[in-house]
Amino acid sequence: MLEERVERVPQPVRLRPDYRAEVTERLRRRGVTIRDIAEIVQQIQAKYVPGITLEQCEASVEAVIAKREVQHALLTGIALDEAAEKGLLEEPLLSILRTDEPLYGVDEVLALAITNVYGSIGLTNFGYLDKVKLGVIERLNSGKSQGHVHTFLDDLVAGIAAAAAARLAHNEP
Amino acid sequence: MLEERVERVPQPVRLRPDYRAEVTERLRRRGVTIRDIAEIVQQIQAKYVPGITLEQCEASVEAVIAKREVQHALLTGIALDEAAEKGLLEEPLLSILRTDEPLYGVDEVLALAITNVYGSIGLTNFGYLDKVKLGVIERLNSGKSQGHVHTFLDDLVAGIAAAAAARLAHNEP
Amino acid sequence: MLEERVERVPQPVRLRPDYRAEVTERLRRRGVTIRDIAEIVQQIQAKYVPGITLEQCEASVEAVIAKREVQHALLTGIALDEAAEKGLLEEPLLSILRTDEPLYGVDEVLALAITNVYGSIGLTNFGYLDKVKLGVIERLNSGKSQGHVHTFLDDLVAGIAAAAAARLAHNEP
Amino acid sequence: MLEERVERVPQPVRLRPDYRAEVTERLRRRGVTIRDIAEIVQQIQAKYVPGITLEQCEASVEAVIAKREVQHALLTGIALDEAAEKGLLEEPLLSILRTDEPLYGVDEVLALAITNVYGSIGLTNFGYLDKVKLGVIERLNSGKSQGHVHTFLDDLVAGIAAAAAARLAHNEP
Repeated sequence: MLEERVERVPQPVRLRPDYRAEVTERLRRRGVTIRDIAEIVQQIQAKYVPGITLEQCEASVEAVIAKREVQHALLTGIALDEAAEKGLLEEPLLSILRTDEPLYGVDEVLALAITNVYGSIGLTNFGYLDKVKLGVIERLNSGKSQGHVHTFLDDLVAGIAAAAAARLAHNEP
Repeated sequence: MLEERVERVPQPVRLRPDYRAEVTERLRRRGVTIRDIAEIVQQIQAKYVPGITLEQCEASVEAVIAKREVQHALLTGIALDEAAEKGLLEEPLLSILRTDEPLYGVDEVLALAITNVYGSIGLTNFGYLDKVKLGVIERLNSGKSQGHVHTFLDDLVAGIAAAAAARLAHNEP
Repeated sequence: MLEERVERVPQPVRLRPDYRAEVTERLRRRGVTIRDIAEIVQQIQAKYVPGITLEQCEASVEAVIAKREVQHALLTGIALDEAAEKGLLEEPLLSILRTDEPLYGVDEVLALAITNVYGSIGLTNFGYLDKVKLGVIERLNSGKSQGHVHTFLDDLVAGIAAAAAARLAHNEP
Repeated sequence: MLEERVERVPQPVRLRPDYRAEVTERLRRRGVTIRDIAEIVQQIQAKYVPGITLEQCEASVEAVIAKREVQHALLTGIALDEAAEKGLLEEPLLSILRTDEPLYGVDEVLALAITNVYGSIGLTNFGYLDKVKLGVIERLNSGKSQGHVHTFLDDLVAGIAAAAAARLAHNEP
């Protein structure tokens, strides 16, 4: 009986593309590994969950990246960074992204969409990371002086780390 | 090896209270059943997923209510509605809640926290429901004329329905 | 004394670029005038503010577009639509934007950043507009079948109209 | 002609209550002055705007508090803190608020509604303040051990300070 009903209902699963592979490859191309992000998660979670392992943090980062909302934000933000690097955007957006204009907030808005996926407690971690720039976030930030554009990526990485930390705190799927 | 590591790590699971029972009871006390909310979900999803059953919609509403973020928002909003009904709040908040002042936006803010749990696509459904007031939302709204305060509850119910619909679309846990 | 102090403080005003002209021109290039958006505002506000004029609605749309947050969101969203139209983006983002994939939520996220500028009451109007597609929003939407990409623009226009309506309700600068 | 039309249009101004006095008094009752918040703003803005005065920061805090969205969030959050202090709430909400349960996120959600009023750049400051707890925020936080409930207020104060700093950066009304 159940099977019959299930058969008549269109299977949303089939319609659901998963861009995990593309996103992971895109991150690597921009100089960021899952492990880099996991290291940040470990640093911010260590005092709440003593003894938390890098493997647990990696698993949490993977779970965050499995969310479609997160994949969409990453694909979009990285595309904008790369388009700015290649000069494919019009002014004034080109200069705004190249200089990471401090009043430009679209990068934070995209990162917040990632952080929100595990509720509002990720928000505090995101703001903190965006300010103190731990690990790979600092590396991305200083790469900006060598012609790289990471206006979106540094915020997106902070957003993923904040969400992965919130996920560990919530212990949610 | 793995077991050893797991043993040393504090179990966040034990620290995680689940208020599903309290929330369901509180909703019922305020005149809202899971089925009421599922009926709204079915109405808004029917054209995207033809043949979707009320049982599938109920399961989705249950999954939304299992999220802690959602439980916290519901417990808080219902407490404010009831405090206003009993006259336990000071002015001007008491009158703002009793009259559901149109410019008061804290109710929408709480509902948005619920909707966000399944990403931004729930947002559109929420705004639509808040405007057209399907099913139990309309009932809550007209109850206001009989001395009931549902300033938060009508938005929270719209938020849960919108999230449950987004969850079906995303097909996520 | 006060003047002296003011003189020593760097003037943030000078650092503040205003992209109102670029944004208005970019909107027109994509087929949207201030008046088009004002007409939507008038439709949704007419029942709350009977007798509201198109001029008042235009002034409110202009005030929304004067906000930097809004300018940044518009410049970014239109750049993405145009990059997709010209095929300048990689897959899978290119197809996601060209087909306006229903589960892609970054467009709603950008629109919400606009709507939030006048507080949460704009949210309901945004969700409603995104669903019923009044005026130019419907026109943008049907243009999609002729090879145009308006994945971001239709949501951004709904966001501006919702914010302009909220601004009239709040009567804020 | 214009005047006539304006006369027929209902004046939203008259419908617009301003709770600035109530909010300022309520803050003082809970141990927070405008100056306390201005001092935090000065600390976080000093490196961006060298020579910024406490008076300028106070004026910015006043402008934030003049926004209705902010007044509503403050009145609501303080009412919840006080209801928890007086034991007027049911369980489990009573214990959640009294212990400031780390996974409760409604306080951050309300604070974010304040911060958003000046766009997304306030977000980073908010997250940072929520973590480092400068000035009066730390004082509120340690007062919790003496039976006071400031679950909402410490986040709301961080939200106001973050918004006031973003407002100075944007130089907006």
